[in-house]
Amino acid sequence: MKFTKMHGLGNDFAVVAEFLSIPEQVATVAKNVCDRHFGVGADGLVFILPSEQADFRMRIFNADGTESEQCGNAVRCVGKYLYDSGMTTATQVTLQTGAGLQTLDLVVENGVVTRVTVDMGEPKLAAAEVPTTLVGEQVVQHPIETQSGQPYKFTAVSMGNPHAVIFVEALEEVDLHHVGPQIETHAYFPRKTNVEFVEVHTPTDVTMHVWERGCGETLACGSGACSVVVAGVLTGHTEREVTVHLKGGDLQIVWSAADNRVYMTGPAVKVYEATWLL
Amino acid sequence: MKFTKMHGLGNDFAVVAEFLSIPEQVATVAKNVCDRHFGVGADGLVFILPSEQADFRMRIFNADGTESEQCGNAVRCVGKYLYDSGMTTATQVTLQTGAGLQTLDLVVENGVVTRVTVDMGEPKLAAAEVPTTLVGEQVVQHPIETQSGQPYKFTAVSMGNPHAVIFVEALEEVDLHHVGPQIETHAYFPRKTNVEFVEVHTPTDVTMHVWERGCGETLACGSGACSVVVAGVLTGHTEREVTVHLKGGDLQIVWSAADNRVYMTGPAVKVYEATWLL
Repeated sequence: MKFTKMHGLGNDFAVVAEFLSIPEQVATVAKNVCDRHFGVGADGLVFILPSEQADFRMRIFNADGTESEQCGNAVRCVGKYLYDSGMTTATQVTLQTGAGLQTLDLVVENGVVTRVTVDMGEPKLAAAEVPTTLVGEQVVQHPIETQSGQPYKFTAVSMGNPHAVIFVEALEEVDLHHVGPQIETHAYFPRKTNVEFVEVHTPTDVTMHVWERGCGETLACGSGACSVVVAGVLTGHTEREVTVHLKGGDLQIVWSAADNRVYMTGPAVKVYEATWLL
Repeated sequence: MKFTKMHGLGNDFAVVAEFLSIPEQVATVAKNVCDRHFGVGADGLVFILPSEQADFRMRIFNADGTESEQCGNAVRCVGKYLYDSGMTTATQVTLQTGAGLQTLDLVVENGVVTRVTVDMGEPKLAAAEVPTTLVGEQVVQHPIETQSGQPYKFTAVSMGNPHAVIFVEALEEVDLHHVGPQIETHAYFPRKTNVEFVEVHTPTDVTMHVWERGCGETLACGSGACSVVVAGVLTGHTEREVTVHLKGGDLQIVWSAADNRVYMTGPAVKVYEATWLL
Protein backbone atom coordinates (compact mmCIF):
# COMPACT_ATOMS: atom_id res chain seq x y z
CA MET A 1 0.00 0.00 0.00
CA LYS A 2 1.41 3.35 -1.03
CA PHE A 3 0.85 6.23 1.38
CA THR A 4 2.01 9.79 1.96
CA LYS A 5 2.71 10.97 5.49
CA MET A 6 1.38 14.49 6.02
CA HIS A 7 0.60 16.81 8.88
CA GLY A 8 -1.40 19.93 9.60
CA LEU A 9 -0.03 21.74 12.66
CA GLY A 10 1.48 18.47 13.92
CA ASN A 11 -1.80 16.55 13.61
CA ASP A 12 -0.44 13.75 11.42
CA PHE A 13 -1.94 11.36 8.90
CA ALA A 14 -1.11 8.56 6.52
CA VAL A 15 -2.94 9.51 3.32
CA VAL A 16 -3.89 6.73 0.88
CA ALA A 17 -5.34 7.46 -2.54
CA GLU A 18 -4.95 4.20 -4.45
CA PHE A 19 -8.31 2.57 -3.63
CA LEU A 20 -11.84 2.91 -5.01
CA SER A 21 -13.31 2.02 -1.62
CA ILE A 22 -11.94 1.49 1.86
CA PRO A 23 -10.13 -1.84 2.31
CA GLU A 24 -11.65 -4.73 4.23
CA GLN A 25 -10.93 -4.85 7.93
CA VAL A 26 -10.13 -1.16 7.80
CA ALA A 27 -10.28 -0.86 11.62
CA THR A 28 -7.40 -3.32 11.96
CA VAL A 29 -5.46 -1.64 9.16
CA ALA A 30 -5.93 1.76 10.82
CA LYS A 31 -4.74 0.47 14.20
CA ASN A 32 -1.68 -1.16 12.65
CA VAL A 33 -0.77 1.84 10.50
CA CYS A 34 -1.30 4.39 13.28
CA ASP A 35 0.73 2.46 15.88
CA ARG A 36 3.71 4.68 16.69
CA HIS A 37 6.17 1.85 17.41
CA PHE A 38 5.16 -1.12 15.27
CA GLY A 39 3.56 0.80 12.40
CA VAL A 40 3.78 4.09 10.52
CA GLY A 41 2.72 6.19 13.47
CA ALA A 42 -0.10 8.67 12.87
CA ASP A 43 -3.14 10.26 14.47
CA GLY A 44 -5.29 8.95 11.62
CA LEU A 45 -5.45 6.94 8.39
CA VAL A 46 -7.06 8.97 5.60
CA PHE A 47 -8.53 7.55 2.40
CA ILE A 48 -9.16 9.71 -0.67
CA LEU A 49 -11.94 8.02 -2.64
CA PRO A 50 -14.20 8.75 -5.61
CA SER A 51 -17.46 10.57 -4.82
CA GLU A 52 -20.77 10.92 -6.64
CA GLN A 53 -21.67 14.06 -4.66
CA ALA A 54 -18.41 16.01 -4.72
CA ASP A 55 -15.08 16.11 -6.52
CA PHE A 56 -13.65 13.59 -4.04
CA ARG A 57 -14.58 11.80 -0.85
CA MET A 58 -12.52 11.64 2.36
CA ARG A 59 -12.87 8.99 5.04
CA ILE A 60 -10.69 9.12 8.13
CA PHE A 61 -10.04 6.40 10.70
CA ASN A 62 -8.56 7.06 14.12
CA ALA A 63 -5.72 5.19 15.78
CA ASP A 64 -8.29 3.15 17.74
CA GLY A 65 -9.92 1.97 14.51
CA THR A 66 -13.07 4.07 14.79
CA GLU A 67 -14.19 6.33 11.95
CA SER A 68 -14.10 10.09 12.44
CA GLU A 69 -16.67 12.36 10.83
CA GLN A 70 -14.41 15.31 10.27
CA CYS A 71 -11.01 16.80 10.93
CA GLY A 72 -9.99 20.25 9.73
CA ASN A 73 -6.29 19.38 9.81
CA ALA A 74 -6.84 16.25 7.69
CA VAL A 75 -9.01 18.12 5.20
CA ARG A 76 -6.18 20.58 4.53
CA CYS A 77 -3.76 17.69 3.96
CA VAL A 78 -6.21 16.13 1.48
CA GLY A 79 -6.42 19.44 -0.39
CA LYS A 80 -2.66 19.60 -0.75
CA TYR A 81 -2.44 15.95 -1.75
CA LEU A 82 -5.03 16.30 -4.50
CA TYR A 83 -3.33 19.27 -6.16
CA ASP A 84 0.31 18.32 -5.64
CA SER A 85 -0.25 14.80 -6.97
CA GLY A 86 -2.08 16.07 -10.05
CA MET A 87 -5.44 14.49 -9.11
CA THR A 88 -6.89 17.95 -9.64
CA THR A 89 -5.71 21.09 -11.38
CA ALA A 90 -8.42 23.25 -9.78
CA THR A 91 -7.68 25.47 -6.79
CA GLN A 92 -11.17 24.99 -5.41
CA VAL A 93 -12.35 21.47 -4.72
CA THR A 94 -15.34 19.97 -2.97
CA LEU A 95 -14.96 17.10 -0.57
CA GLN A 96 -17.57 14.68 0.71
CA THR A 97 -16.91 14.03 4.41
CA GLY A 98 -18.79 12.38 7.26
CA ALA A 99 -19.91 15.88 8.28
CA GLY A 100 -21.26 16.80 4.84
CA LEU A 101 -19.76 18.55 1.81
CA GLN A 102 -16.79 20.85 2.36
CA THR A 103 -15.28 23.36 -0.03
CA LEU A 104 -11.51 23.83 0.00
CA ASP A 105 -9.60 26.77 -1.45
CA LEU A 106 -6.00 25.95 -2.24
CA VAL A 107 -3.17 28.49 -1.98
CA VAL A 108 -0.55 27.49 -4.58
CA GLU A 109 3.04 28.73 -4.41
CA ASN A 110 5.73 27.52 -6.83
CA GLY A 111 3.43 24.81 -8.11
CA VAL A 112 2.55 23.26 -4.76
CA VAL A 113 -0.14 23.91 -2.20
CA THR A 114 1.20 25.57 0.94
CA ARG A 115 -2.02 26.58 2.66
CA VAL A 116 -5.64 25.58 2.44
CA THR A 117 -8.78 27.50 3.39
CA VAL A 118 -11.62 25.39 4.71
CA ASP A 119 -15.22 26.56 5.08
CA MET A 120 -16.01 25.42 8.61
CA GLY A 121 -19.70 26.42 8.45
CA GLU A 122 -21.81 28.57 10.73
CA PRO A 123 -21.33 28.57 14.50
CA LYS A 124 -24.25 27.62 16.72
CA LEU A 125 -24.61 29.75 19.81
CA ALA A 126 -27.94 28.85 21.43
CA ALA A 127 -27.32 27.32 24.85
CA ALA A 128 -29.25 24.15 24.03
CA GLU A 129 -27.53 23.68 20.68
CA VAL A 130 -23.93 23.78 21.95
CA PRO A 131 -25.16 21.93 24.13
CA THR A 132 -25.07 23.38 27.60
CA THR A 133 -27.62 23.02 30.41
CA LEU A 134 -27.95 26.82 30.50
CA VAL A 135 -30.68 28.76 28.70
CA GLY A 136 -30.68 31.59 26.18
CA GLU A 137 -29.71 32.48 22.62
CA GLN A 138 -26.06 32.89 23.64
CA VAL A 139 -23.86 31.97 26.60
CA VAL A 140 -21.30 34.77 26.83
CA GLN A 141 -18.81 35.25 29.69
CA HIS A 142 -20.76 33.00 32.02
CA PRO A 143 -19.06 32.28 35.38
CA ILE A 144 -17.85 28.71 35.94
CA GLU A 145 -16.41 27.24 39.11
CA THR A 146 -13.31 25.04 39.23
CA GLN A 147 -11.10 23.78 42.02
CA SER A 148 -8.36 26.16 40.90
CA GLY A 149 -9.70 28.99 43.06
CA GLN A 150 -9.50 31.21 39.99
CA PRO A 151 -12.93 32.56 38.87
CA TYR A 152 -13.27 31.86 35.13
CA LYS A 153 -15.89 33.05 32.65
CA PHE A 154 -16.63 31.05 29.50
CA THR A 155 -18.34 31.63 26.18
CA ALA A 156 -20.05 28.62 24.61
CA VAL A 157 -19.72 27.95 20.86
CA SER A 158 -20.57 24.93 18.74
CA MET A 159 -18.71 24.38 15.47
CA GLY A 160 -20.41 21.00 15.15
CA ASN A 161 -18.78 20.09 18.48
CA PRO A 162 -18.98 22.00 21.78
CA HIS A 163 -16.40 24.54 22.92
CA ALA A 164 -15.96 26.56 26.11
CA VAL A 165 -13.74 29.58 25.37
CA ILE A 166 -12.08 31.34 28.30
CA PHE A 167 -10.10 34.57 27.91
CA VAL A 168 -7.29 35.02 30.43
CA GLU A 169 -4.66 37.67 31.17
CA ALA A 170 -1.73 35.24 30.92
CA LEU A 171 -1.74 31.66 29.60
CA GLU A 172 1.30 30.80 31.71
CA GLU A 173 -0.87 31.13 34.82
CA VAL A 174 -3.30 28.43 33.61
CA ASP A 175 -2.61 24.85 34.71
CA LEU A 176 -4.40 23.30 31.72
CA HIS A 177 -3.97 19.70 32.85
CA HIS A 178 -5.59 20.56 36.17
CA VAL A 179 -8.40 22.90 35.06
CA GLY A 180 -9.06 21.47 31.58
CA PRO A 181 -10.63 18.18 32.70
CA GLN A 182 -12.73 19.94 35.34
CA ILE A 183 -14.34 22.18 32.72
CA GLU A 184 -14.53 19.38 30.12
CA THR A 185 -16.70 17.35 32.50
CA HIS A 186 -18.53 20.23 34.22
CA ALA A 187 -22.26 19.71 34.77
CA TYR A 188 -22.99 22.60 32.36
CA PHE A 189 -21.95 20.35 29.44
CA PRO A 190 -24.13 17.25 29.02
CA ARG A 191 -21.92 15.97 26.16
CA LYS A 192 -18.72 17.30 27.78
CA THR A 193 -16.84 20.09 26.02
CA ASN A 194 -13.59 21.12 24.41
CA VAL A 195 -11.88 23.87 26.39
CA GLU A 196 -9.86 26.78 24.98
CA PHE A 197 -7.85 29.22 27.08
CA VAL A 198 -6.95 32.37 25.15
CA GLU A 199 -4.51 35.21 25.67
CA VAL A 200 -5.27 38.25 23.50
CA HIS A 201 -2.18 40.11 22.23
CA THR A 202 -4.10 42.46 19.89
CA PRO A 203 -7.65 42.25 18.47
CA THR A 204 -6.19 40.39 15.46
CA ASP A 205 -3.59 38.22 17.21
CA VAL A 206 -4.20 35.69 19.99
CA THR A 207 -2.62 32.57 21.45
CA MET A 208 -4.72 29.61 22.56
CA HIS A 209 -4.09 26.38 24.47
CA VAL A 210 -6.62 23.63 23.93
CA TRP A 211 -7.90 20.76 26.04
CA GLU A 212 -9.72 18.41 23.68
CA ARG A 213 -12.72 16.45 24.83
CA GLY A 214 -11.67 12.84 25.30
CA CYS A 215 -8.06 13.55 24.27
CA GLY A 216 -6.46 16.00 26.68
CA GLU A 217 -4.07 18.70 25.54
CA THR A 218 -3.30 18.66 21.82
CA LEU A 219 -1.04 20.69 19.54
CA ALA A 220 -3.90 22.16 17.54
CA CYS A 221 -7.66 22.09 17.17
CA GLY A 222 -9.18 23.77 14.10
CA SER A 223 -12.75 23.96 15.36
CA GLY A 224 -11.34 25.31 18.63
CA ALA A 225 -9.54 28.14 16.84
CA CYS A 226 -12.77 28.99 15.00
CA SER A 227 -14.68 29.02 18.29
CA VAL A 228 -12.09 31.32 19.83
CA VAL A 229 -12.66 33.96 17.15
CA VAL A 230 -16.45 33.66 17.37
CA ALA A 231 -16.18 34.10 21.15
CA GLY A 232 -13.67 36.92 20.62
CA VAL A 233 -16.15 38.84 18.48
CA LEU A 234 -19.06 38.16 20.85
CA THR A 235 -17.08 39.43 23.84
CA GLY A 236 -15.33 42.30 22.07
CA HIS A 237 -11.88 40.77 22.55
CA THR A 238 -11.11 40.37 18.83
CA GLU A 239 -12.04 41.47 15.36
CA ARG A 240 -13.46 39.03 12.79
CA GLU A 241 -10.12 38.28 11.11
CA VAL A 242 -7.59 36.87 13.56
CA THR A 243 -4.30 34.99 13.56
CA VAL A 244 -4.52 32.27 16.19
CA HIS A 245 -1.24 30.85 17.53
CA LEU A 246 -1.46 27.23 18.66
CA LYS A 247 1.30 24.99 19.99
CA GLY A 248 1.47 23.26 16.58
CA GLY A 249 1.56 26.49 14.52
CA ASP A 250 -0.71 29.27 13.29
CA LEU A 251 -4.20 29.41 11.81
CA GLN A 252 -5.91 32.37 10.18
CA ILE A 253 -9.58 32.50 11.08
CA VAL A 254 -12.23 34.69 9.49
CA TRP A 255 -15.79 34.81 10.80
CA SER A 256 -17.51 36.35 7.80
CA ALA A 257 -20.05 39.09 8.52
CA ALA A 258 -21.43 38.53 5.01
CA ASP A 259 -22.46 34.88 5.28
CA ASN A 260 -21.96 34.11 9.02
CA ARG A 261 -19.61 31.23 8.09
CA VAL A 262 -16.17 30.65 9.61
CA TYR A 263 -13.20 30.20 7.25
CA MET A 264 -10.00 28.58 8.51
CA THR A 265 -6.73 28.91 6.62
CA GLY A 266 -3.72 26.86 7.64
CA PRO A 267 -0.72 24.90 6.43
CA ALA A 268 -0.48 21.35 5.17
CA VAL A 269 2.89 19.59 4.93
CA LYS A 270 4.04 16.47 3.10
CA VAL A 271 6.68 14.66 5.20
CA TYR A 272 7.45 11.60 3.10
CA GLU A 273 6.14 9.22 0.48
CA ALA A 274 6.31 5.55 1.30
CA THR A 275 5.34 2.00 0.57
CA TRP A 276 3.92 0.00 3.47
CA LEU A 277 5.53 -3.46 3.46
CA LEU A 278 3.59 -5.39 6.11
CA MET B 1 16.87 11.28 1.75
CA LYS B 2 15.76 7.69 1.34
CA PHE B 3 15.12 5.73 4.51
CA THR B 4 13.58 2.47 5.66
CA LYS B 5 11.46 2.39 8.79
CA MET B 6 12.24 -0.70 10.86
CA HIS B 7 11.66 -1.96 14.34
CA GLY B 8 12.97 -4.57 16.73
CA LEU B 9 10.35 -5.44 19.36
CA GLY B 10 8.70 -2.03 18.85
CA ASN B 11 11.96 -0.09 19.32
CA ASP B 12 11.79 1.78 16.01
CA PHE B 13 14.32 3.38 13.70
CA ALA B 14 14.69 5.25 10.45
CA VAL B 15 17.58 3.47 8.72
CA VAL B 16 19.61 5.41 6.14
CA ALA B 17 22.26 3.75 3.98
CA GLU B 18 22.90 6.24 1.19
CA PHE B 19 25.75 8.26 2.73
CA LEU B 20 29.49 7.73 3.07
CA SER B 21 29.53 9.74 6.30
CA ILE B 22 26.93 11.24 8.58
CA PRO B 23 25.31 14.41 7.22
CA GLU B 24 26.10 17.86 8.56
CA GLN B 25 23.99 19.06 11.46
CA VAL B 26 23.05 15.47 12.18
CA ALA B 27 21.66 16.37 15.61
CA THR B 28 19.04 18.62 14.00
CA VAL B 29 18.28 16.03 11.33
CA ALA B 30 17.83 13.35 13.99
CA LYS B 31 15.49 15.53 16.05
CA ASN B 32 13.40 16.40 12.98
CA VAL B 33 13.23 12.83 11.68
CA CYS B 34 12.44 11.30 15.08
CA ASP B 35 9.67 13.80 15.92
CA ARG B 36 6.47 11.76 16.10
CA HIS B 37 4.12 14.49 14.87
CA PHE B 38 6.10 16.73 12.52
CA GLY B 39 8.61 14.13 11.27
CA VAL B 40 8.92 10.41 10.58
CA GLY B 41 8.59 9.41 14.20
CA ALA B 42 11.23 7.03 15.56
CA ASP B 43 13.26 6.22 18.64
CA GLY B 44 16.45 6.73 16.64
CA LEU B 45 18.01 7.64 13.30
CA VAL B 46 20.48 4.96 12.17
CA PHE B 47 23.19 5.40 9.56
CA ILE B 48 24.86 2.45 7.84
CA LEU B 49 28.29 3.63 6.73
CA PRO B 50 31.50 2.16 5.31
CA SER B 51 34.03 0.91 7.86
CA GLU B 52 37.77 0.22 7.74
CA GLN B 53 37.60 -2.07 10.76
CA ALA B 54 34.51 -4.16 10.01
CA ASP B 55 32.17 -5.04 7.15
CA PHE B 56 30.05 -1.98 7.94
CA ARG B 57 29.74 0.77 10.50
CA MET B 58 26.58 1.76 12.39
CA ARG B 59 26.01 5.14 14.02
CA ILE B 60 22.77 5.83 15.86
CA PHE B 61 21.32 9.17 16.96
CA ASN B 62 18.56 9.51 19.54
CA ALA B 63 15.42 11.60 19.26
CA ASP B 64 17.12 14.32 21.34
CA GLY B 65 19.99 14.55 18.83
CA THR B 66 22.60 12.85 20.98
CA GLU B 67 24.62 9.90 19.68
CA SER B 68 24.09 6.49 21.24
CA GLU B 69 26.94 4.00 21.60
CA GLN B 70 24.88 0.89 21.12
CA CYS B 71 21.43 -0.56 20.78
CA GLY B 72 20.73 -4.25 20.41
CA ASN B 73 17.38 -3.66 18.70
CA ALA B 74 18.94 -1.32 16.13
CA VAL B 75 21.80 -3.72 15.44
CA ARG B 76 19.31 -6.44 14.47
CA CYS B 77 17.54 -4.04 12.12
CA VAL B 78 20.86 -3.17 10.49
CA GLY B 79 21.61 -6.87 9.97
CA LYS B 80 18.29 -7.37 8.20
CA TYR B 81 18.73 -4.23 6.13
CA LEU B 82 22.18 -5.24 4.91
CA TYR B 83 21.10 -8.68 3.72
CA ASP B 84 17.62 -7.87 2.40
CA SER B 85 18.89 -4.90 0.38
CA GLY B 86 21.73 -6.93 -1.14
CA MET B 87 24.52 -4.93 0.54
CA THR B 88 25.83 -8.27 1.76
CA THR B 89 25.23 -11.89 0.73
CA ALA B 90 26.93 -13.26 3.86
CA THR B 91 24.89 -14.49 6.84
CA GLN B 92 27.57 -13.39 9.27
CA VAL B 93 28.59 -9.74 9.25
CA THR B 94 30.73 -7.59 11.51
CA LEU B 95 29.62 -4.15 12.54
CA GLN B 96 31.66 -1.27 13.94
CA THR B 97 29.61 0.45 16.67
CA GLY B 98 30.29 3.01 19.36
CA ALA B 99 30.66 0.10 21.76
CA GLY B 100 33.21 -1.75 19.63
CA LEU B 101 32.95 -4.46 16.97
CA GLN B 102 29.88 -6.68 16.95
CA THR B 103 29.27 -9.90 15.08
CA LEU B 104 25.78 -10.57 13.73
CA ASP B 105 24.43 -13.93 12.62
CA LEU B 106 21.51 -13.64 10.24
CA VAL B 107 18.65 -16.15 10.09
CA VAL B 108 17.38 -16.17 6.50
CA GLU B 109 13.93 -17.52 5.57
CA ASN B 110 12.53 -17.32 2.03
CA GLY B 111 15.32 -15.00 1.01
CA VAL B 112 14.90 -12.43 3.79
CA VAL B 113 16.30 -12.08 7.28
CA THR B 114 13.67 -12.76 9.96
CA ARG B 115 15.87 -12.98 13.04
CA VAL B 116 19.35 -11.87 14.00
CA THR B 117 21.69 -13.20 16.66
CA VAL B 118 23.89 -10.59 18.29
CA ASP B 119 26.95 -11.35 20.41
CA MET B 120 26.31 -9.13 23.44
CA GLY B 121 29.69 -9.88 25.10
CA GLU B 122 30.56 -11.09 28.58
CA PRO B 123 28.60 -9.95 31.63
CA LYS B 124 30.43 -8.18 34.45
CA LEU B 125 29.35 -9.23 37.91
CA ALA B 126 31.81 -7.66 40.37
CA ALA B 127 29.97 -5.17 42.60
CA ALA B 128 32.28 -2.28 41.70
CA GLU B 129 32.09 -2.99 37.97
CA VAL B 130 28.28 -2.94 37.63
CA PRO B 131 28.67 -0.44 39.44
CA THR B 132 27.08 -0.76 42.86
CA THR B 133 28.30 0.62 46.17
CA LEU B 134 28.33 -2.93 47.57
CA VAL B 135 31.42 -5.15 47.71
CA GLY B 136 32.21 -8.61 46.40
CA GLU B 137 32.72 -10.61 43.21
CA GLN B 138 28.95 -10.93 42.76
CA VAL B 139 25.81 -9.29 44.13
CA VAL B 140 23.19 -12.06 44.16
CA GLN B 141 19.74 -11.81 45.77
CA HIS B 142 20.73 -8.82 47.89
CA PRO B 143 17.87 -7.20 49.87
CA ILE B 144 16.78 -3.74 48.76
CA GLU B 145 14.28 -1.45 50.45
CA THR B 146 11.56 0.46 48.65
CA GLN B 147 8.49 2.35 49.80
CA SER B 148 6.28 -0.44 48.45
CA GLY B 149 6.46 -2.37 51.71
CA GLN B 150 7.36 -5.45 49.65
CA PRO B 151 10.83 -6.82 50.48
CA TYR B 152 12.71 -7.28 47.17
CA LYS B 153 16.03 -9.00 46.45
CA PHE B 154 18.10 -8.01 43.43
CA THR B 155 20.96 -9.47 41.45
CA ALA B 156 23.36 -6.98 39.85
CA VAL B 157 24.60 -7.52 36.28
CA SER B 158 26.44 -5.25 33.86
CA MET B 159 26.08 -5.86 30.12
CA GLY B 160 28.00 -2.63 29.49
CA ASN B 161 25.23 -0.87 31.44
CA PRO B 162 23.96 -1.65 34.96
CA HIS B 163 20.96 -3.87 35.68
CA ALA B 164 19.15 -4.85 38.88
CA VAL B 165 17.23 -8.08 38.25
CA ILE B 166 14.41 -8.96 40.66
CA PHE B 167 12.55 -12.28 40.52
CA VAL B 168 8.94 -12.11 41.70
CA GLU B 169 6.08 -14.57 42.10
CA ALA B 170 3.65 -12.55 39.94
CA LEU B 171 4.42 -9.54 37.70
CA GLU B 172 0.86 -8.28 38.06
CA GLU B 173 1.58 -7.49 41.71
CA VAL B 174 4.47 -5.15 40.81
CA ASP B 175 3.64 -1.46 40.38
CA LEU B 176 6.57 -0.79 38.05
CA HIS B 177 5.96 2.95 37.75
CA HIS B 178 6.05 3.28 41.54
CA VAL B 179 8.89 0.89 42.43
CA GLY B 180 11.00 1.22 39.25
CA PRO B 181 12.19 4.80 39.84
CA GLN B 182 12.93 4.07 43.51
CA ILE B 183 15.31 1.25 42.58
CA GLU B 184 16.71 3.13 39.55
CA THR B 185 17.87 5.93 41.85
CA HIS B 186 18.65 3.84 44.97
CA ALA B 187 21.87 4.75 46.79
CA TYR B 188 23.33 1.32 45.88
CA PHE B 189 23.69 2.47 42.25
CA PRO B 190 26.06 5.44 41.82
CA ARG B 191 25.27 5.62 38.08
CA LYS B 192 21.64 4.63 38.59
CA THR B 193 20.43 1.33 37.16
CA ASN B 194 18.03 -0.35 34.78
CA VAL B 195 15.50 -2.48 36.65
CA GLU B 196 14.02 -5.80 35.49
CA PHE B 197 11.18 -7.60 37.24
CA VAL B 198 10.93 -11.24 36.18
CA GLU B 199 8.31 -13.94 36.53
CA VAL B 200 9.67 -17.43 35.90
CA HIS B 201 7.23 -19.80 34.13
CA THR B 202 9.77 -22.60 33.61
CA PRO B 203 13.59 -22.60 33.77
CA THR B 204 13.62 -21.89 30.01
CA ASP B 205 10.67 -19.46 29.79
CA VAL B 206 10.28 -16.17 31.65
CA THR B 207 8.45 -12.85 31.31
CA MET B 208 10.13 -9.55 32.20
CA HIS B 209 9.00 -5.95 32.60
CA VAL B 210 11.70 -3.34 32.31
CA TRP B 211 12.21 0.12 33.79
CA GLU B 212 14.97 1.74 31.76
CA ARG B 213 17.40 4.15 33.37
CA GLY B 214 16.49 7.66 32.24
CA CYS B 215 13.55 6.43 30.12
CA GLY B 216 10.97 4.74 32.29
CA GLU B 217 9.05 1.67 31.18
CA THR B 218 9.87 0.50 27.64
CA LEU B 219 8.57 -2.27 25.40
CA ALA B 220 11.89 -4.08 25.25
CA CYS B 221 15.48 -3.89 26.45
CA GLY B 222 17.99 -6.32 24.91
CA SER B 223 20.73 -5.90 27.50
CA GLY B 224 18.04 -6.25 30.17
CA ALA B 225 16.91 -9.59 28.75
CA CYS B 226 20.56 -10.77 28.73
CA SER B 227 20.97 -9.67 32.36
CA VAL B 228 17.83 -11.54 33.34
CA VAL B 229 19.24 -14.83 32.07
CA VAL B 230 22.64 -14.23 33.68
CA ALA B 231 20.86 -13.50 36.97
CA GLY B 232 18.60 -16.49 36.39
CA VAL B 233 21.59 -18.82 36.14
CA LEU B 234 23.35 -17.25 39.14
CA THR B 235 20.24 -17.65 41.32
CA GLY B 236 19.16 -21.04 39.98
CA HIS B 237 15.92 -19.67 38.52
CA THR B 238 16.74 -20.49 34.89
CA GLU B 239 18.91 -22.55 32.60
CA ARG B 240 21.42 -20.94 30.21
CA GLU B 241 19.08 -20.95 27.20
CA VAL B 242 15.88 -19.03 27.85
CA THR B 243 12.99 -17.47 25.94
CA VAL B 244 12.33 -14.05 27.45
CA HIS B 245 8.88 -12.52 26.85
CA LEU B 246 8.88 -8.71 26.81
CA LYS B 247 5.97 -6.35 26.15
CA GLY B 248 7.31 -5.76 22.62
CA GLY B 249 7.86 -9.46 21.78
CA ASP B 250 10.22 -12.35 22.50
CA LEU B 251 14.00 -12.70 22.67
CA GLN B 252 15.99 -15.91 22.86
CA ILE B 253 18.98 -15.51 25.17
CA VAL B 254 21.90 -17.91 25.54
CA TRP B 255 24.61 -17.40 28.15
CA SER B 256 27.29 -19.66 26.72
CA ALA B 257 29.15 -21.87 29.22
CA ALA B 258 31.85 -22.31 26.58
CA ASP B 259 32.94 -18.71 26.10
CA ASN B 260 31.03 -16.85 28.88
CA ARG B 261 29.42 -14.59 26.25
CA VAL B 262 25.72 -13.78 25.98
CA TYR B 263 23.98 -14.28 22.62
CA MET B 264 20.67 -12.56 21.92
CA THR B 265 18.41 -13.66 19.06
CA GLY B 266 15.41 -11.60 18.09
CA PRO B 267 13.28 -10.30 15.26
CA ALA B 268 13.79 -7.34 12.96
CA VAL B 269 10.94 -5.98 10.86
CA LYS B 270 10.81 -3.66 7.87
CA VAL B 271 7.69 -1.47 8.08
CA TYR B 272 8.04 0.74 5.01
CA GLU B 273 10.45 2.28 2.55
CA ALA B 274 10.21 6.01 2.07
CA THR B 275 11.64 9.22 0.73
CA TRP B 276 11.90 12.12 3.20
CA LEU B 277 10.65 15.28 1.49
CA LEU B 278 11.55 18.06 3.94
